[in-house]
Amino acid sequence: MTIENVSSNKSFGGWNKQYNHYSESLNCTMRFAIYLPPNASNGDKVPVLYWLSGLTCTDENFIHKAGAQRLAAELGIAIVVPDTSPRGEGVADDDNYDLGQGAGFYVNATQEPWSSHYHMYDYVVDELPRLVESTFPVSDKRAISGHSMGGHGALVIALRNPERYASVSAFSPITNPMNCPWGQKAFNAYLGKDRESWREYDASELMRRATQFVPALVDQGEGDDFLVEQLKPELLAAAAEASAYPLELRLQEGYDHSYYFIASFIDDHLRFHAAHLNG
Amino acid sequence: MTIENVSSNKSFGGWNKQYNHYSESLNCTMRFAIYLPPNASNGDKVPVLYWLSGLTCTDENFIHKAGAQRLAAELGIAIVVPDTSPRGEGVADDDNYDLGQGAGFYVNATQEPWSSHYHMYDYVVDELPRLVESTFPVSDKRAISGHSMGGHGALVIALRNPERYASVSAFSPITNPMNCPWGQKAFNAYLGKDRESWREYDASELMRRATQFVPALVDQGEGDDFLVEQLKPELLAAAAEASAYPLELRLQEGYDHSYYFIASFIDDHLRFHAAHLNG
Repeated sequence: MTIENVSSNKSFGGWNKQYNHYSESLNCTMRFAIYLPPNASNGDKVPVLYWLSGLTCTDENFIHKAGAQRLAAELGIAIVVPDTSPRGEGVADDDNYDLGQGAGFYVNATQEPWSSHYHMYDYVVDELPRLVESTFPVSDKRAISGHSMGGHGALVIALRNPERYASVSAFSPITNPMNCPWGQKAFNAYLGKDRESWREYDASELMRRATQFVPALVDQGEGDDFLVEQLKPELLAAAAEASAYPLELRLQEGYDHSYYFIASFIDDHLRFHAAHLNG
Repeated sequence: MTIENVSSNKSFGGWNKQYNHYSESLNCTMRFAIYLPPNASNGDKVPVLYWLSGLTCTDENFIHKAGAQRLAAELGIAIVVPDTSPRGEGVADDDNYDLGQGAGFYVNATQEPWSSHYHMYDYVVDELPRLVESTFPVSDKRAISGHSMGGHGALVIALRNPERYASVSAFSPITNPMNCPWGQKAFNAYLGKDRESWREYDASELMRRATQFVPALVDQGEGDDFLVEQLKPELLAAAAEASAYPLELRLQEGYDHSYYFIASFIDDHLRFHAAHLNG
């Protein structure tokens, strides 16, 4: 497995780096970002927080705008940020921002023209951690978080793989994609018309019937323009109540859907994950 | 004076906002950003840190990437970020990144075709603070900082107006523009061939003959690609020694010219300014 370093910037005593590699799951070249805290340079094997980004994002938005490196450096946590979909000339795409490149929805697509590349679920759950854990000075302790479409991805991936993650968190997640326009459009395209196949990618469905628990923290801005139509945190709360899931859902007054919101509360999420990764 | 709010995002309990206004000094419409800390909403008049950005930047780079809001909120400091030049269709420009729009160099241009719009010195020293102080809940306590071309601007403006600023700092400043390619190109274009007129815009020249002191902090990355040819902090250090100027110059191992560097040390700069603004 070859991996090519494409950028390297010192940050809070550690390093932000970007790498290209050929992904077998996605059948194309992918770029990801990693923040390595200072103690990773001293021979320590550090735990990893995976961050899944939202619609239109790449590996760069979180790294540039969330301000996570300061506390990650202090806590000794690496952060790995994949892209949000397969990319490239040979990869199917759509003119709209909410389907195709930049909008992989962290599923394994079964429908044409998406099924030859769009396997972001496998990429995030298996291939990327295997690559990261065999390349960098990191342990196999993992946590996962994300924003919006990536919050959906983080919750689904943790709920389906509770043995692989110490904790999960999300900002403004799409909590019930089967019942919102973004999710319905994407699932119809990637998974087809049979709604039974959608259930495995719906955080509220999964949380409602969960029996193994990954501690979960969710922050949602009350000033978020997508709150009512797309995000619906009340449905996730109801699902958590049904299974007595350990979900902490916080509504934050006045905050919107932007990285300003993420930056304002990322420290809380990092401390939450650190407590579970080091517990 | 009309001023139009163009964006508003809650951030660390305060607000990031952007405004458009017509600038008399620059003879065009300008956008600036302001971060207002939480206590500015409670009737407190807060001090202001002005941030001057580098080549190619707008009012957004610092606001998105520096991670300054967290500590500014805690310290109760507003941050105002102007654009780096006049802008617009009627404004003279150049094909290169280091002259014209995005590269105003914080001077008052005297040469054609620049002299009808390029008066960033007057804008930053006079017009923008007057607008800010008459519009927002801020005091007349000011500090100034900046990066690269903006570090040059911050140092020059503080050195020429010591009564107006409590403190000055810079990241990777162009310390001696008269003696580096970026500065020589810009000063030739904006100020003309008479090098005497350049001295009033050269931080090393001004610091060497300073008699009134504004406390100054400068951080420079040792891994900065522009260090030797363009930035030359050793010339500023020599100037400070000549006038016994209170300059703290720090060389930071491994850091480059990027916002990763700024983010890593912005807290030190905010605490430095807070100590002087509240002193």
